[in-house]
Amino acid sequence: MMNNDFTPMTEDEIHHITLTWLKERGVTLDAVAELVYILQHTYFPDITLSECLEHVQQVLTKREVQNAVMTGIQLDRLAEQRLIKEPLLDIIRRDEGLYGIDETLATAILNVYGSIGMTNFGYIDRVKPLILSRLNNHQGSDIHTFLDDIVGAIAAAAAARLSHNRKHQQEAPNPVMHTPFNDNFLFFGQKPH
Amino acid sequence: MMNNDFTPMTEDEIHHITLTWLKERGVTLDAVAELVYILQHTYFPDITLSECLEHVQQVLTKREVQNAVMTGIQLDRLAEQRLIKEPLLDIIRRDEGLYGIDETLATAILNVYGSIGMTNFGYIDRVKPLILSRLNNHQGSDIHTFLDDIVGAIAAAAAARLSHNRKHQQEAPNPVMHTPFNDNFLFFGQKPH
Amino acid sequence: MMNNDFTPMTEDEIHHITLTWLKERGVTLDAVAELVYILQHTYFPDITLSECLEHVQQVLTKREVQNAVMTGIQLDRLAEQRLIKEPLLDIIRRDEGLYGIDETLATAILNVYGSIGMTNFGYIDRVKPLILSRLNNHQGSDIHTFLDDIVGAIAAAAAARLSHNRKHQQEAPNPVMHTPFNDNFLFFGQKPH
Amino acid sequence: MMNNDFTPMTEDEIHHITLTWLKERGVTLDAVAELVYILQHTYFPDITLSECLEHVQQVLTKREVQNAVMTGIQLDRLAEQRLIKEPLLDIIRRDEGLYGIDETLATAILNVYGSIGMTNFGYIDRVKPLILSRLNNHQGSDIHTFLDDIVGAIAAAAAARLSHNRKHQQEAPNPVMHTPFNDNFLFFGQKPH
Repeated sequence: MMNNDFTPMTEDEIHHITLTWLKERGVTLDAVAELVYILQHTYFPDITLSECLEHVQQVLTKREVQNAVMTGIQLDRLAEQRLIKEPLLDIIRRDEGLYGIDETLATAILNVYGSIGMTNFGYIDRVKPLILSRLNNHQGSDIHTFLDDIVGAIAAAAAARLSHNRKHQQEAPNPVMHTPFNDNFLFFGQKPH
Repeated sequence: MMNNDFTPMTEDEIHHITLTWLKERGVTLDAVAELVYILQHTYFPDITLSECLEHVQQVLTKREVQNAVMTGIQLDRLAEQRLIKEPLLDIIRRDEGLYGIDETLATAILNVYGSIGMTNFGYIDRVKPLILSRLNNHQGSDIHTFLDDIVGAIAAAAAARLSHNRKHQQEAPNPVMHTPFNDNFLFFGQKPH
Repeated sequence: MMNNDFTPMTEDEIHHITLTWLKERGVTLDAVAELVYILQHTYFPDITLSECLEHVQQVLTKREVQNAVMTGIQLDRLAEQRLIKEPLLDIIRRDEGLYGIDETLATAILNVYGSIGMTNFGYIDRVKPLILSRLNNHQGSDIHTFLDDIVGAIAAAAAARLSHNRKHQQEAPNPVMHTPFNDNFLFFGQKPH
Repeated sequence: MMNNDFTPMTEDEIHHITLTWLKERGVTLDAVAELVYILQHTYFPDITLSECLEHVQQVLTKREVQNAVMTGIQLDRLAEQRLIKEPLLDIIRRDEGLYGIDETLATAILNVYGSIGMTNFGYIDRVKPLILSRLNNHQGSDIHTFLDDIVGAIAAAAAARLSHNRKHQQEAPNPVMHTPFNDNFLFFGQKPH
């Protein structure tokens, strides 16, 4: 049996650490919420940044998401510290074109809210708006090979969660709720992503 | 044991049928090659449509790809013929926003060439250039809920295959080959998708 | 714009239809709960069938799961009715070895509770205990090519959900709760699947 | 622009390093071939270990596979060296039950040969035959949290490759080839995994 000189963390503590690590790497939840807004305001013109933020926060309570975030950030840090062996270090530092493990880690985040997040992820991962542009600029000594995909995946998963949530709201038996969504509802018949 | 009154098709025949079904649904391999060109010419300015076409053709020799193409086209056709039961028929006909099985089928195609295809898939699935725009217009009685994702996935997989292939070419011990790629090579250090 | 002569179903109605379709195909939630029990009682000796059933029911409230269940059952039925074109009909009827779209659909279910469900899915999909044995016997005119993978995936997802849930229970600040789990907790340090 | 004091490795060199790292971690290709044999000899009673080995070798030429192998082995090594921060270090060292990133990495390997590999992966990942038993014994200071899933995934992918290959052989227009497979062929109508 292992000698384990470490008291296992609770789920709450793992959640807290995940948020801390994101912050230490320069990622605020507000910045992720802005990505969600960009992805969804065409389909739901009445969304607000605070609604987007709420979904980002909920995505980050999922253990599978926390595992992917921690593992990706750890790999970026180890690459900065040059503690990864060649040739893997070089591949990660250059964010080499044929290395897809960062996208693979991102799918662990995306999958939690179903395959509808994949399109949004691919879109912002290529267009690189807002914070993704900064994370991906490959300047200075910072390495964000995993983090940029992780942030994009959190935003795409939050966008999928928002879509699911809105659908339920539209169906709530509350006539006051239904009225302002009427146009939206027709539009929603078409795939919003 | 089953009475099977059908002689199993060979792998070659299944390949041939896949191409036939795509053609019957209005998808030419040239149109898919154009999508590959759009995805990759920024990274490889010297690519030609015929090089793109070659990779599309190779992607379509994979049995996993053929299975996804046939299953998706069959579902679109059955929806047109109203042979699918409600509420699934309505969901597929409207390409409803929370239905992600079309994206799920697309991953079966994407995965064959690794996770690097996912970003390209998401990008063209949202931007809908060229043939994807026509497939996605939701006009008339045609239903292409599955086909548009399938065509996007074939193009994204072909783009990933092209990236892998170019990397190998750059490394070929042929000095004549290396010269024109010099600029490209530096650029290639950054992720080409 | 489409003429849509069908009133879109609510999320609750889609949930209800999913359960009805499973029942019509001979799948009771109790039978799925038994699979969960087989998968998890080694790790959690105190689980009951009713706890397993609760997790099966929760898995089936997820829209992504419902989409996969409905699509898979529909394909099985259309194959029985011979409304699928050759060679796809033959491939599905024989549950042909190189056809993996049934497993692809299953991943849409598995992914909702993270990648930890994959191992359990693979295990019961190969060992085929209980109801999976009956679904997979390839006798008579019934076709369950998709359904057996779907049922296995629901059970594996419910097992993953149960694992997540138990972890949270163990951490609840209730000393009465903690006592009986002490042995379990040590064991839980090893991966329970 | 980055100062890159490292000459990028060629694809051949990356392939060679991958095999070296596996060997350094105690994984011989023969041991992986034995897993393939266990998975497939029921369906193809005439397979030999050398045929299994050939497929293992081919799987390891794929860049996506190499990326997953290198990244997983690197993470195991860093955990042994305690260079990973808490709580991630503890989670990886204990191979904690809710951590599924090892399975996520494994899917990058499995997906290359389609979803038919998933069942075999899940089966051997739970049953842990042969080398997997040793990698998973959690004794001593070695950490193989990622490696055991990676080895299982290579074996499952090689088994899928073997299935595809055999299908093509059965169809080869060579009457001498066809004769000994006759029984097999009937059997093959049922899903061989």
